[in-house]
Amino acid sequence: MRNVTKDNITDVFKGYLVDDMPPRTREIMAALVQHLHDFARETNLTHDEWRQGIEFLEGCAAIESEDRHEFVLASDVLGLSSLVDMLHSRDDATSSSVLGPFHVSGAPALDVGGDMKRNFGGPVLLAEGVIKDTDGNPIAGAEIDIWQTAPNGLYASQDEEQDTFSFHGLMNVGDDGRYAFTTVKPVEYTVPTDGPVGAILDACGRHPWRPSHLHYIVKAPGYRTLVTEIFPDDDPYLDQDTVFGVRNDLVMTYHTKQAADFPEGMALSGKVTESFLSVKFDVVLAKE
Amino acid sequence: MRNVTKDNITDVFKGYLVDDMPPRTREIMAALVQHLHDFARETNLTHDEWRQGIEFLEGCAAIESEDRHEFVLASDVLGLSSLVDMLHSRDDATSSSVLGPFHVSGAPALDVGGDMKRNFGGPVLLAEGVIKDTDGNPIAGAEIDIWQTAPNGLYASQDEEQDTFSFHGLMNVGDDGRYAFTTVKPVEYTVPTDGPVGAILDACGRHPWRPSHLHYIVKAPGYRTLVTEIFPDDDPYLDQDTVFGVRNDLVMTYHTKQAADFPEGMALSGKVTESFLSVKFDVVLAKE
Repeated sequence: MRNVTKDNITDVFKGYLVDDMPPRTREIMAALVQHLHDFARETNLTHDEWRQGIEFLEGCAAIESEDRHEFVLASDVLGLSSLVDMLHSRDDATSSSVLGPFHVSGAPALDVGGDMKRNFGGPVLLAEGVIKDTDGNPIAGAEIDIWQTAPNGLYASQDEEQDTFSFHGLMNVGDDGRYAFTTVKPVEYTVPTDGPVGAILDACGRHPWRPSHLHYIVKAPGYRTLVTEIFPDDDPYLDQDTVFGVRNDLVMTYHTKQAADFPEGMALSGKVTESFLSVKFDVVLAKE
Repeated sequence: MRNVTKDNITDVFKGYLVDDMPPRTREIMAALVQHLHDFARETNLTHDEWRQGIEFLEGCAAIESEDRHEFVLASDVLGLSSLVDMLHSRDDATSSSVLGPFHVSGAPALDVGGDMKRNFGGPVLLAEGVIKDTDGNPIAGAEIDIWQTAPNGLYASQDEEQDTFSFHGLMNVGDDGRYAFTTVKPVEYTVPTDGPVGAILDACGRHPWRPSHLHYIVKAPGYRTLVTEIFPDDDPYLDQDTVFGVRNDLVMTYHTKQAADFPEGMALSGKVTESFLSVKFDVVLAKE
């Protein structure tokens, strides 16, 4: 188009898309550019503001590495990651929540009833539940990949004091679908704020905190893989998670119990001498 | 907000913006995230597609450097750069057009009537015109910064065979507002296609070509600085510039003239022995 104008440029862009391109690519590109252009037109975006946007992307690029995923973090704090999760959540299954940047593949096997706490201090947390289908039947042989922060608020990948798989475990459940493990209660923490995403949070007057959570990836053959998190209902950041990950069905009470009530058959059975915390959380998977 | 849903997440995001943040930052962030979320909802964006978007950004990051500005290129081929130009163009002045990545600051002085062609082959192009205000009066002492491709389709910054300021010149006009210089006709060229932006063009079935042009930045005290381009009206890519830079008032006829008609007072006067090309283009600047 020779005479491109601010009013026709979006149609000119769509006119450049060839007839035989994949329909889904066409749909995505047309919608992306429609919204990009509408955003610029509605805000009457200036050259200086455009330049700030480019500098934001270039600033993310400058620190992007295998251990630092600033573009993912941007998606997280703008709510896009959570929105994509929710668009593909099923109403009849446990809600999904953000994967985040701290999952590590290859976690060591953790037996049902096993312990992730090791030598770390703090009261024992016993987490248990059943992995079920949407009819309430246990899913035999489901796999649950568990990770969380240490008591210092750091994930293993952030912390030189912890080994690679500290507070990571991979559990295969039996015919009863039941999982159970001991750990310490995870703590709230901040997303990284020393990059361009931190500057965005700052410009918006937003804090960088996430409520504490246990993070699970739950898989079983024939079922949709679920990435989710369990939040304690007394966390101060439940109503203001900086990555928008909290859903009502993922908020649980962590009950305080007496040592005498600690169950048999756990790695720590007989070794818990003080009160402990207990959380029960059943996971419902939808069929593929 | 504890129970974030796909329908309320945009309002939750806006609720996180503090009361005392700068109003313009609030407006930009709210509009950006509204469109980002609407894009995801309308397309029902999948995790795989989200991942492709992240990989696109990470791919741009991997090649971003002082000499390669892939994010700017993305903005260019998606029409955002041209749209921002047009949003701030004035109807009563010469249209602006994309700056692009090839401008180099500090070009050597070029006298009115000077030559940028040097030893390069091809017919002489004589470009001339008057820099005027919106009432048609010449602007004394305006400055015109000129750059273009060499006959091989490369800008100096892309080409080891050319020195830094090859086909770059900075001219200060006199009281009559008149500029004039000789060069060779610029040629059409492709934007870089060996990065993620090239993959986007490919996925859309789009070519990477830009029509040939003379590129100007025109400045004068008290006037808005204008970045613009002049296109010949016989260029094959006029109707499909891959960065959407063509405006009707920037398309000019390059007339063929006989050597005898070459004017006096130019650096090449008396040295042009064959036919030459001539283009006249007056530049109208708006007051600040």
